[in-house]
Amino acid sequence: MSKKWFNAWTDDLYLADDALLIEQIRTKVLTKRGIFARPEEILITLGSQNALYLLGAVLIRPGTQIAMENPGYYAARDIFAMAGANIQAVPVDHEGLDLDQLGSAELVFATPSHQFPTNATLSLERRYRLLAWAENTDALIIEDDYEVETDFSGDATMPMKALDRSSRVIYVGSFSKSLMPGLRLGFVVADSRLIAELRRLRGLMMRHPPSNNQRTVALFLALGHHDAYLSRMKRVYAERWHELSSGLDADFPGWKRQTKFGGSSFWLEGPKGFSASQLAQKALGAGVVIEPGNALFHGGSSNDRFFRMAFSSIPKERIRPGIARLREIAETLV
Amino acid sequence: MSKKWFNAWTDDLYLADDALLIEQIRTKVLTKRGIFARPEEILITLGSQNALYLLGAVLIRPGTQIAMENPGYYAARDIFAMAGANIQAVPVDHEGLDLDQLGSAELVFATPSHQFPTNATLSLERRYRLLAWAENTDALIIEDDYEVETDFSGDATMPMKALDRSSRVIYVGSFSKSLMPGLRLGFVVADSRLIAELRRLRGLMMRHPPSNNQRTVALFLALGHHDAYLSRMKRVYAERWHELSSGLDADFPGWKRQTKFGGSSFWLEGPKGFSASQLAQKALGAGVVIEPGNALFHGGSSNDRFFRMAFSSIPKERIRPGIARLREIAETLV
Repeated sequence: MSKKWFNAWTDDLYLADDALLIEQIRTKVLTKRGIFARPEEILITLGSQNALYLLGAVLIRPGTQIAMENPGYYAARDIFAMAGANIQAVPVDHEGLDLDQLGSAELVFATPSHQFPTNATLSLERRYRLLAWAENTDALIIEDDYEVETDFSGDATMPMKALDRSSRVIYVGSFSKSLMPGLRLGFVVADSRLIAELRRLRGLMMRHPPSNNQRTVALFLALGHHDAYLSRMKRVYAERWHELSSGLDADFPGWKRQTKFGGSSFWLEGPKGFSASQLAQKALGAGVVIEPGNALFHGGSSNDRFFRMAFSSIPKERIRPGIARLREIAETLV
Repeated sequence: MSKKWFNAWTDDLYLADDALLIEQIRTKVLTKRGIFARPEEILITLGSQNALYLLGAVLIRPGTQIAMENPGYYAARDIFAMAGANIQAVPVDHEGLDLDQLGSAELVFATPSHQFPTNATLSLERRYRLLAWAENTDALIIEDDYEVETDFSGDATMPMKALDRSSRVIYVGSFSKSLMPGLRLGFVVADSRLIAELRRLRGLMMRHPPSNNQRTVALFLALGHHDAYLSRMKRVYAERWHELSSGLDADFPGWKRQTKFGGSSFWLEGPKGFSASQLAQKALGAGVVIEPGNALFHGGSSNDRFFRMAFSSIPKERIRPGIARLREIAETLV
């Protein structure tokens, strides 16, 4: 960045976010998702997790009922639990959150695009039903548009925020997947009164996310680099997905997994008697990283048959040898 | 930054901070202040205000008694009040906090190097007394080493953290003044158990401060640029201090102010009947910014005679004309 932008990247942006970044998010990121937001409806956060922390602090009081996907994003669960929420763990099937089990929730947290960790996509029909339910029960929905920016399937479903006509959906987005997690930049799109409240709290908590990073990402978007980068990234992800998928077909036939094309990981269920924790431990010693799934269930799970395999940072040529090694280890365990 | 540092500035640093930055803070920043800390006694924060927010969340429960300087740093007051603290407003004289009014405080927040906003320096004698008091009453002290990095007086007093033999002092530092506020980088030095607790909370709140900024500042320090920059900065600040001081002598004779050399601002008290708010408002219209002091008092103050004049970002040649203009406006009011 040159002298030209000196103030933009050195100043203390207490009352407003980088105007160029807000403009780029509005016109290059949100419009692609069918969301049309005014500047005062957007807040920049220190990554999407920071957005959830701020939302937890503002929306949750001791005893607030929040419905969350199970299995689900453990950090969100920890954040909302710390804020005092009563967590209702709602099962997830191949179409996402089971809406018949929302009970008396006042707040719903969901990752509709790619459910973490199962990768299920919440069907459009369920999105409409969830919105109608929220209107009837006067509930709010926190929609974390997890991994949509790297969705290479090309058929991303409309976010609930784009379908929402009564400001019930609070939309959370991130640059951690499309740029880098170390950068810590995300954003919230919501009713301007809620955004003002979140901004006040963010002001106390940290004043604002670093100005230099805000402007850097704004320029990256404005100059078209972000779009170009996403195209390359999606091509690479698609290759790795196919490689891992065919490897699993060959080496782990019959192990259940979601067939949804997209995302950055697979969610697998091993046969009866299989222990994912044991496999993970042995595999780590052989240089293969898998993530046991039981910690992703609310309150932990006695079912130790699930695990997650992330492929976003594994070069294509190392995927098949890794799966072969994993199979050898699994054969000694099952 | 080059490819060489790629992982350092893109990675998700959830469990530990940038090792190079911690090393630089330990060996180049803290040693200058007589503080010797192990890596596990240091946490990087998103500026010093974020450090205070984390400390408030971990140390304060509803009803915790905290003694704070009055007048004092309003954001710290808001943060601790939001955490549920009972705030004891303790007067400040030319030697800093009045130790005879600490009452039943369990926690003390102080800016000993340059008290904000009066610029008083807590005397060495009071530092020892405050430490002894904390040991006797089992209290903790949060020491915000405000503006020490830009102290051009050359006679900075030892921080309480360097005198502390019982881990009662929690030290807060910042790069906002010595680098830029937009960067948002600060740090806490404390007992390793407290640091571990703060790190867990920070992990939920934001995962970590941006990795790219951590490594950038680490390199800036490691290559000696920070020291070189501080030398230049101190020379410029000293010039501006003298310019403002002689201007006030000439144009505002008899108006009370601290005579302490250093800092980045002056704290003035006008004559009886003078309204700083009124002056601030009129002066703003004439392009001169002063900050009325009443909002810096706990609960506000009916005494509207105090104001703060910051000079760090005002070029030397604009200082005397600004004071002359301020005098013209003041003459119409007093």
